[in-house]
Amino acid sequence: MTMREITVDDVEDIASGAAILGTGGGGDPYIGRLLAAAALREHGPVRLVPLAEVPDDAEVLTVAMMGAPTVMVEKLPSGDQVGLAPRALATYLGRKLTHIACAEAGGVNSLIPVVAAAQLGLPLIDADGMGRAFPEIQMILPTIYGITTTPMALTDEKGNRSVFDTVDNMWAERLARTATIEMGCSAMISAYAMSGPQARESLVPATLSLCAELGALVRSARETHADPAAAVIARMGGRHLFTGKVVDVERRTADGFARGVARLSGMGDDTGAEFVLRFQNENLVAERDGAVTASVPDLICSVDQETGVAITTEGLRYGQRMTVFTAPADPRWHSEAGLALAGPRYFGYDIDPVVA
Amino acid sequence: MTMREITVDDVEDIASGAAILGTGGGGDPYIGRLLAAAALREHGPVRLVPLAEVPDDAEVLTVAMMGAPTVMVEKLPSGDQVGLAPRALATYLGRKLTHIACAEAGGVNSLIPVVAAAQLGLPLIDADGMGRAFPEIQMILPTIYGITTTPMALTDEKGNRSVFDTVDNMWAERLARTATIEMGCSAMISAYAMSGPQARESLVPATLSLCAELGALVRSARETHADPAAAVIARMGGRHLFTGKVVDVERRTADGFARGVARLSGMGDDTGAEFVLRFQNENLVAERDGAVTASVPDLICSVDQETGVAITTEGLRYGQRMTVFTAPADPRWHSEAGLALAGPRYFGYDIDPVVA
Repeated sequence: MTMREITVDDVEDIASGAAILGTGGGGDPYIGRLLAAAALREHGPVRLVPLAEVPDDAEVLTVAMMGAPTVMVEKLPSGDQVGLAPRALATYLGRKLTHIACAEAGGVNSLIPVVAAAQLGLPLIDADGMGRAFPEIQMILPTIYGITTTPMALTDEKGNRSVFDTVDNMWAERLARTATIEMGCSAMISAYAMSGPQARESLVPATLSLCAELGALVRSARETHADPAAAVIARMGGRHLFTGKVVDVERRTADGFARGVARLSGMGDDTGAEFVLRFQNENLVAERDGAVTASVPDLICSVDQETGVAITTEGLRYGQRMTVFTAPADPRWHSEAGLALAGPRYFGYDIDPVVA
Repeated sequence: MTMREITVDDVEDIASGAAILGTGGGGDPYIGRLLAAAALREHGPVRLVPLAEVPDDAEVLTVAMMGAPTVMVEKLPSGDQVGLAPRALATYLGRKLTHIACAEAGGVNSLIPVVAAAQLGLPLIDADGMGRAFPEIQMILPTIYGITTTPMALTDEKGNRSVFDTVDNMWAERLARTATIEMGCSAMISAYAMSGPQARESLVPATLSLCAELGALVRSARETHADPAAAVIARMGGRHLFTGKVVDVERRTADGFARGVARLSGMGDDTGAEFVLRFQNENLVAERDGAVTASVPDLICSVDQETGVAITTEGLRYGQRMTVFTAPADPRWHSEAGLALAGPRYFGYDIDPVVA
């Protein structure tokens, strides 16, 4: 299934599928849906360009929302804010922007680029930089190809624009994170300026089409009273990890992230077992009865057991009945460079990555 | 006395005079001297343009060091860092820079623009934006004329560049202050992009010539065993406030500023009296036996009683023998708009300004 444009009618499925790939992060799909639907209604459909068809002379920028998802749900971006970020970066670069791309997959961050493309009247590339969501800016496959975060632009809903042109990605992350916190813990960013060949080489193809497909699978499973999680796991080549009830959530918004731990008590076949999810915006590590059963860089997805709707880490609540599963990440995340960027050890877990 | 160029030989007097106008802030003159002398040795003399001769089609940027002076004395800027800030801002503005200007007078901030002008091969305007030093970015006469801090560029000694293009000066201050703290509490800034007519209208003329003159007065008074403070007070039309010994200094580096209070015990004619200096980078309020005797926006200058060398607030030490005097600020600081920006009430002192 290859989409060629995104209309208002596609937004719900994309948001729902993207939230699953968001592995607990990537923002609340409800907010992504609202923003994208409003922009598409105002500006008309957005043209979607398959990754392989991006021309050599393309000037590509990614657009995303940065910050604590716990804050994003209460502090919505302003309409103009989204297009302002790539515009500020293009001004600094002195280049004429031709294509918008997604930095990551997620309920907000797959839809924010739709908003930017609609506002700027530019085509969107059917791809993203991760094939999932990760919490820090530099955790994106273009990093492996030597494409830098910097220079990057950051805007807030008041209209403030910042451009950071730093000596390395770590400094871009530090300065942007501090500015994001000062701007109120959520901001719009544009970064990873790429040529056409760089985009074709480094991005994960067809992510927006996959999001739409996963969203449609969940919707039709729900309509036919089938098991939505099972349909999604099959499509993603994933593995069921646990079905259970949330019995405890520890969560704090620290350093601009939503960090914490969720504890689940087993239901059905998992009755009697205990399950732990550790997260920093995204789910990072899963443990069953004290043993690690899944970890980054592979995906750890959490969905409502009955509806298949993704549960974000900021949406975790006592009593929710969840199905948790793991699915393979883009294989480049398992390379040495990929693991150094976003393997369990980077996040402070002294374990080898568990392969989905 | 009107200077037409700045050579290595002028640097010592300018630094020494500028530190007096810095009213305790504006940076350590020793550092300003070292940086400017090195740049002038490498690039040759800098041409100094009288404010009235700045052409209409000029593109002017100010350059300054921002941060806690307590940190600046230990974390020196790198050679290239100074020129990098105006260059980054000119890139963002898409303009060809023609003149460098001083934002404030001070031991470092009168000399940093000399370094920038030398590095970039541009003329420097014989003027500054305050006629003194003040701690926050927006406290500059161009603000009164509607010339905004934003867009501004900020660089650190590692080579990181930030550009802030904000909805108002307050947000420029907030974002730049946070970035400065993240960069290690000191950074180079470039801001207040001005046309020729804007510069001629809003800046204080002949500040660098005045700095050189004050520095020369102090030097010659020292050589002839005259009273350096008396010579400077006479030239500045000032008023002697107190001569005494520092008996207590409370100082903390908070929110990127050096804040505190110094207490002095009187000597000579002031024997038996007590004196208090309250500062935030710069001296803000002076009290004699509990009564306010001087305040911002007028200058409160502190110099070594014997040598006339300015004592910065970060250089205050127990046992120093100081002469403190007040001198009139540029009259525009006493306008309603000037007092709103940098009067005692802005700094949290519920008093009317004392006129020097």
